Amino acid sequence: MRNIKLTIEYDGTDLAGWQTQSQNNRTVQGEIEKALKTIFKKKIHLIGSGRTDAGVHALGQVANFKTDAKMATEEITRALNGNLPADIVILKAQEISSNFHAQYSAKRKTYRYTILNRRQRPALQKNFCLHIPYKLNLSLMKKAAKDFVGRKDFRSFMASGSESKKDTTRTIYKISLRKIQDFILIDITANGFLYKMVRNIVGTLLDIGSGKIDKNSVKAILKQKTRLAAGVTAPAKGLSLIKVEY
Amino acid sequence: MRNIKLTIEYDGTDLAGWQTQSQNNRTVQGEIEKALKTIFKKKIHLIGSGRTDAGVHALGQVANFKTDAKMATEEITRALNGNLPADIVILKAQEISSNFHAQYSAKRKTYRYTILNRRQRPALQKNFCLHIPYKLNLSLMKKAAKDFVGRKDFRSFMASGSESKKDTTRTIYKISLRKIQDFILIDITANGFLYKMVRNIVGTLLDIGSGKIDKNSVKAILKQKTRLAAGVTAPAKGLSLIKVEY
Repeated sequence: MRNIKLTIEYDGTDLAGWQTQSQNNRTVQGEIEKALKTIFKKKIHLIGSGRTDAGVHALGQVANFKTDAKMATEEITRALNGNLPADIVILKAQEISSNFHAQYSAKRKTYRYTILNRRQRPALQKNFCLHIPYKLNLSLMKKAAKDFVGRKDFRSFMASGSESKKDTTRTIYKISLRKIQDFILIDITANGFLYKMVRNIVGTLLDIGSGKIDKNSVKAILKQKTRLAAGVTAPAKGLSLIKVEY
Repeated sequence: MRNIKLTIEYDGTDLAGWQTQSQNNRTVQGEIEKALKTIFKKKIHLIGSGRTDAGVHALGQVANFKTDAKMATEEITRALNGNLPADIVILKAQEISSNFHAQYSAKRKTYRYTILNRRQRPALQKNFCLHIPYKLNLSLMKKAAKDFVGRKDFRSFMASGSESKKDTTRTIYKISLRKIQDFILIDITANGFLYKMVRNIVGTLLDIGSGKIDKNSVKAILKQKTRLAAGVTAPAKGLSLIKVEY
């Protein structure tokens, strides 16, 4: 069997997230599996690098599937894109070693969270950012962000209701915050993320940027190891999966 | 009467352009005039800096209207945004001298045209760019762009069917082309633009970038003074009105 790696871009606005669901919702996995069935005339299981929630976008999600078909990878890309809806596109299909697994082989992931920090709501980027109308102190947020970097137990930033027994230690390699016109971009690279971890980290950074909590609170929140310690979950539409590294 | 200047952002995707029409289409002018009527309880005529076509976006369109109401400009902004649909937002309302006219007082306008130059179609920016799947030669396009700069008769780049007797001389102050990842951004600043002039200039630059016509063709096309001489009109969705200067 050949193993095919896909790199995928999607606009999550009208999608019910990555994972195929029993309901009649449009999901990324579901739409791609439907296109694979049309092309290869059989049911093919697609493995993603990880789930993304409804409303979350991707510039470089990665997935893989097995096939014994001889079709060239360029032809697979072309055929999939011809069968996929306008909000999902395959950027690349490539043949890869048989032991490659989009989820288990992933070494690093980078997410970007986009905030529009101006008085007026967005008209143009409304599906791609969180609007914060009050002034955020970027310098405080940058200082606080450093306390997330390293190998730590991120239980306080995992969605409540997630599996509680599993290992909640992750390594964040880098968090960068930068301002481009009225936008604040927060890029986070880690070896993996707990459920809603990026959105919960962003929620806490927003509380620091608005002065609601002290810039030195992050260490204490991490120590408490309970979701109740951290800030609110930032909404999905500001989040994009930028890349997955192997 | 007070004269109020508005700075406006809009996502043109689902709008039938700037100008109020007799049909039941949603237009930017129509939606703002409707909101003004709700707020001020009378019909108010809004003057725009110029029309934009259906599908064209704006980050900084400018308009003005007269009112004898005492409402503070911040309150006007807030009230308008509360009454406008999600794809239109007033960034600023300010009181301005009575002789200010959004169209006649305009000194310079800047438009941006966005091209996605990669093999695969866009999923994320599909409403905000033109997709060109073949490789464009940016260096040739930059060289050719210089021939548009200056005070010239742009009749060859005016939409056919436009009023033919009017003065078709305009001054382009600057054209810049730059590549950001897979996007090519073309910014054009002029003292004014003929109907569809930006999209016709972009169409010709695309013919140069793809090698369809020579990079030295621009001067000859300008001399011919007929729409038939230039390239096709680039689609509306890649175009944004960036700013209007007074």
